[in-house]
Amino acid sequence: MADSEMKTRMHAVRRHMARMGVDVIIVRSTDRFLNEYVPTSESARVWITGFTGSMGEAIITADAAYLAVDGRYWVQGPKETDADIWTVVKVPMGTALDVSLAQTLADLAVSAKPKKLRIGFEPERITLNALQRLKTAVGPGCTWKPLFPSPVEQARGAGRPAGQAPGLRLVDEKKVGATVRDKLDALTPKLQAVGADALLVQKLDDIAYLSNLRGTELPYQATFKSIALATKETLFIGIDPSTVPNAVRVARDDVLFMPEAELFTLVGKKAKRKAVLLDPSQNTERVRAQVEATGARIVLGATPVAAMKAAKNAGEQACMQDAFRRADTVVAEAIKWACTEVVAGRRVTERSFADKVTERFEAHGAVGLSFSIISAAGKNGAIVHYSDPSPRRALKRGELMLLDTGGYFEEGYATDLTRTFLVGGPRDKATEQQKYIYTLVLKAAIAGMSAVFPKGTLGGALDAIVRAPIWAEGLDFAHGTGHGVGINVHEFPPSVRPGAVTPLEPGQIFSIEPGLYMPKFGGVRIENLCTVEPVPKNKGFLRVKPLTFSPLDKRLIDTKRLTAAEKAFLKDFAAAYVPAV
Amino acid sequence: MADSEMKTRMHAVRRHMARMGVDVIIVRSTDRFLNEYVPTSESARVWITGFTGSMGEAIITADAAYLAVDGRYWVQGPKETDADIWTVVKVPMGTALDVSLAQTLADLAVSAKPKKLRIGFEPERITLNALQRLKTAVGPGCTWKPLFPSPVEQARGAGRPAGQAPGLRLVDEKKVGATVRDKLDALTPKLQAVGADALLVQKLDDIAYLSNLRGTELPYQATFKSIALATKETLFIGIDPSTVPNAVRVARDDVLFMPEAELFTLVGKKAKRKAVLLDPSQNTERVRAQVEATGARIVLGATPVAAMKAAKNAGEQACMQDAFRRADTVVAEAIKWACTEVVAGRRVTERSFADKVTERFEAHGAVGLSFSIISAAGKNGAIVHYSDPSPRRALKRGELMLLDTGGYFEEGYATDLTRTFLVGGPRDKATEQQKYIYTLVLKAAIAGMSAVFPKGTLGGALDAIVRAPIWAEGLDFAHGTGHGVGINVHEFPPSVRPGAVTPLEPGQIFSIEPGLYMPKFGGVRIENLCTVEPVPKNKGFLRVKPLTFSPLDKRLIDTKRLTAAEKAFLKDFAAAYVPAV
Repeated sequence: MADSEMKTRMHAVRRHMARMGVDVIIVRSTDRFLNEYVPTSESARVWITGFTGSMGEAIITADAAYLAVDGRYWVQGPKETDADIWTVVKVPMGTALDVSLAQTLADLAVSAKPKKLRIGFEPERITLNALQRLKTAVGPGCTWKPLFPSPVEQARGAGRPAGQAPGLRLVDEKKVGATVRDKLDALTPKLQAVGADALLVQKLDDIAYLSNLRGTELPYQATFKSIALATKETLFIGIDPSTVPNAVRVARDDVLFMPEAELFTLVGKKAKRKAVLLDPSQNTERVRAQVEATGARIVLGATPVAAMKAAKNAGEQACMQDAFRRADTVVAEAIKWACTEVVAGRRVTERSFADKVTERFEAHGAVGLSFSIISAAGKNGAIVHYSDPSPRRALKRGELMLLDTGGYFEEGYATDLTRTFLVGGPRDKATEQQKYIYTLVLKAAIAGMSAVFPKGTLGGALDAIVRAPIWAEGLDFAHGTGHGVGINVHEFPPSVRPGAVTPLEPGQIFSIEPGLYMPKFGGVRIENLCTVEPVPKNKGFLRVKPLTFSPLDKRLIDTKRLTAAEKAFLKDFAAAYVPAV
Repeated sequence: MADSEMKTRMHAVRRHMARMGVDVIIVRSTDRFLNEYVPTSESARVWITGFTGSMGEAIITADAAYLAVDGRYWVQGPKETDADIWTVVKVPMGTALDVSLAQTLADLAVSAKPKKLRIGFEPERITLNALQRLKTAVGPGCTWKPLFPSPVEQARGAGRPAGQAPGLRLVDEKKVGATVRDKLDALTPKLQAVGADALLVQKLDDIAYLSNLRGTELPYQATFKSIALATKETLFIGIDPSTVPNAVRVARDDVLFMPEAELFTLVGKKAKRKAVLLDPSQNTERVRAQVEATGARIVLGATPVAAMKAAKNAGEQACMQDAFRRADTVVAEAIKWACTEVVAGRRVTERSFADKVTERFEAHGAVGLSFSIISAAGKNGAIVHYSDPSPRRALKRGELMLLDTGGYFEEGYATDLTRTFLVGGPRDKATEQQKYIYTLVLKAAIAGMSAVFPKGTLGGALDAIVRAPIWAEGLDFAHGTGHGVGINVHEFPPSVRPGAVTPLEPGQIFSIEPGLYMPKFGGVRIENLCTVEPVPKNKGFLRVKPLTFSPLDKRLIDTKRLTAAEKAFLKDFAAAYVPAV
């Protein structure tokens, strides 16, 4: 995007800000469905900043603009934004983006004195908790003004692209282990326990989970844009009913589809003496206001769906393991192809390698990718979320190549896997530095995949166990150790990060993905998906069990640096890989 | 104590409860100075329960009584209490006692419906935060009534023993690295930053820290009972002025001593347009009410003294290292004595061993012990805080003996050290089980003492690193990994426990004390004091550095189970021990 175009856009936004009477506005990455991956073309934040990363929070004043990004985007953030317009705030690991946002707003509030800072926010893009945290952190002496639509959306105006059809499809209720009826029956006593008659659901993967439906409209996701109301009898889904295929309607007895506006009318009709549970970490300020307007009683509390969804049942585990096995094979095949081509003297680029990965996913039956393929050669591997593989960057024999990719198969659960390999033939030798870095990351990965701990142990403890071998060398990585995986490729709970206080529970599925990144050297990351299971012989103890087994690059392993236990782990790990046909 | 006497006491308490119109009372372990170690003879909780452990929270209703204790007292709690009167609640690791307390109260509140449960509490023994947490956790539908004095104190009446004189003494301001003036000068801008003119201090070690004074009145502590008000100019100490030696008065220009009541009168006189900072985690509900009554403005916030006190300056570090070296020697000498005596066929009991430890502390210049000596032979080692060494239990050759002890030397900083040893001569052999357990605990201790981590790492992460080798074997220990040490033997911050969110900072001094306890086998604990220092070659990284080096028992180490790095650590550790003369 030309810089002059970006300046024009910013000028228009500031004109709307002045007209609406605010000194500063917050521009969030998410959309009104609180999507993590908003299509670049639809994202208001991408439109105004130029920054295409998945996460980033922006603040615009009359004469300044700040973009806060985490460790994944410290390199990409400044690269994609116009330095004349944007100050990129590099938020350190362990600090949430909204803490940085609040700090910037608090500084602006102090500078504005004795005038009160007038802060504009988008009520459809912020949860009740997030808004409350921001208000508390910024402190008194400001006014908060909901702006709907926001100055950015107004400036963007008709240029905004239309969305796609949701592309609803059924998942096989026999395979995923629980019908919609089963799920409503499990949900009902949990709602009753907190005195609620219904649950208002905005989290798209919660809706996909409850409905046993998937969609194709969102890039890299298996969800579909909607809002839902779960009652004892029925799951009401607010969506354009004309987009719902007849087969879906017929197969889902316990689901009723209606336009979103009618969903709130329905709440209004049922409102008398009825209580609706809203989760302040999931529901937006705008929806809260809409429910309040219906006259229903609002109960605030954690949604019971999060824990239901996190502990995968046997059917889900089977579906996911089948998908993981295919993804393991996709990655192994693509790596073998690239090495063979390069050794044969044929040109392979980051882009053509990514295209090969996509082709192999399709060949193995994937219905989509779960995120933009990270195909990073040499130094590009140091950009943690390098999301735009270059058709001009050819893979060179002897350099490291990092591939991070995942897909969706028929049942609509995400896969996620990272392998780093040496470009070249089986007899090519890695340098000492390459082996040192790779082996160190591998030791961290093994520490995580073989961890044992008592019930109740928190994600933060596992994070420390994984990092310890890397810390011992005075190194670290600026991203979390792992995230939950389910219908979305990033699912919470669980969480494996510094200070994470969510307990590790049997049936959870999450990644363990230590890495090391050096701008002048490149990057190594090894990511596997794992679950937690009881230790048969030790009551009260749990252990991590790996679920992905795509081969590791033996040429990069310095066996001298491995303990006997680590070697034994690797032997079992290699034996567990059985390619999908 | 005869059971009939305990029943008589409980009867009297319940009579007072009925008269004061409450259904249930909370009886806390602490006194009005929020002491951790209240002398057994002075403790109202010990008087009514019979339980002598340092921590435990009791609840008494008209027909039931509950005592909540943590992992340290799961064995001792039921042993010391009358099962006809008390239900001992064994609170699991990771759950605070007051969470358990709140749960019990909430259950009682539900059972009382439709009547409102009337809860009596002691306003002088509960901090603002603790009271708020209890009220929140118990929920609405109860009434809370401050009882002063409490029904337990009333029942106890005149039987209550008088306290001792404070025994104030000066510490050498040159040695401890900062004068009272230095400390007030450091404190003042921190108070101004939160809009306060003065700080009301109740935490006894904060008063000892700010005044550079120590006392002898409290068993196992170097503090003295008092209350203080710190202003820019002066540290006012509320204490009976007749107990302050003239030398103390002369040496401390910036300290003014006055009766406690006058301190509040002073606050009242200065109150106009003045703000007093209260720390809701440190100040009691009663003192809040007293300050409020003076007309002063109350500012609530964290006391700046905690962080000042936690980061030891070079002078304090030197004082403490000198004390640690003497304590190392005390323990080494006592262990050598015990083994020699037993091999020579002479009788050594838990009690006579403890007496020898006391004698060696005195010989090396200690002015007191920092806690009751834990001298636990064989199976008694499984009682984590075994505080009453028996004169009848003789040490047997070939069994494990656990010694956990600490003292105060002239400068008034606590020491704390645990060693487990095999009773017998240098050529005596340990069993495979003894070596297995000891070596496992040792591996955990080494993991902690050699840990490296980035700045900002939390205590909970170090806790996981220490436990990981023990967890890997399906074992765990039901106490924290470590606590801060300073003027008090338990100082917070820092904290090394599951989920601890206090960051590890250079200059902090804390214990690392993994252990394993099996009722049929006994206990092994290895405790060392450590500090945190920057890693010279790796900017942004910190490492643990051990400060205690009392010899480990080589006969109990299974070197086959140690890595090369662990062996190298032990070599350096052994070389660092230089006995005090």
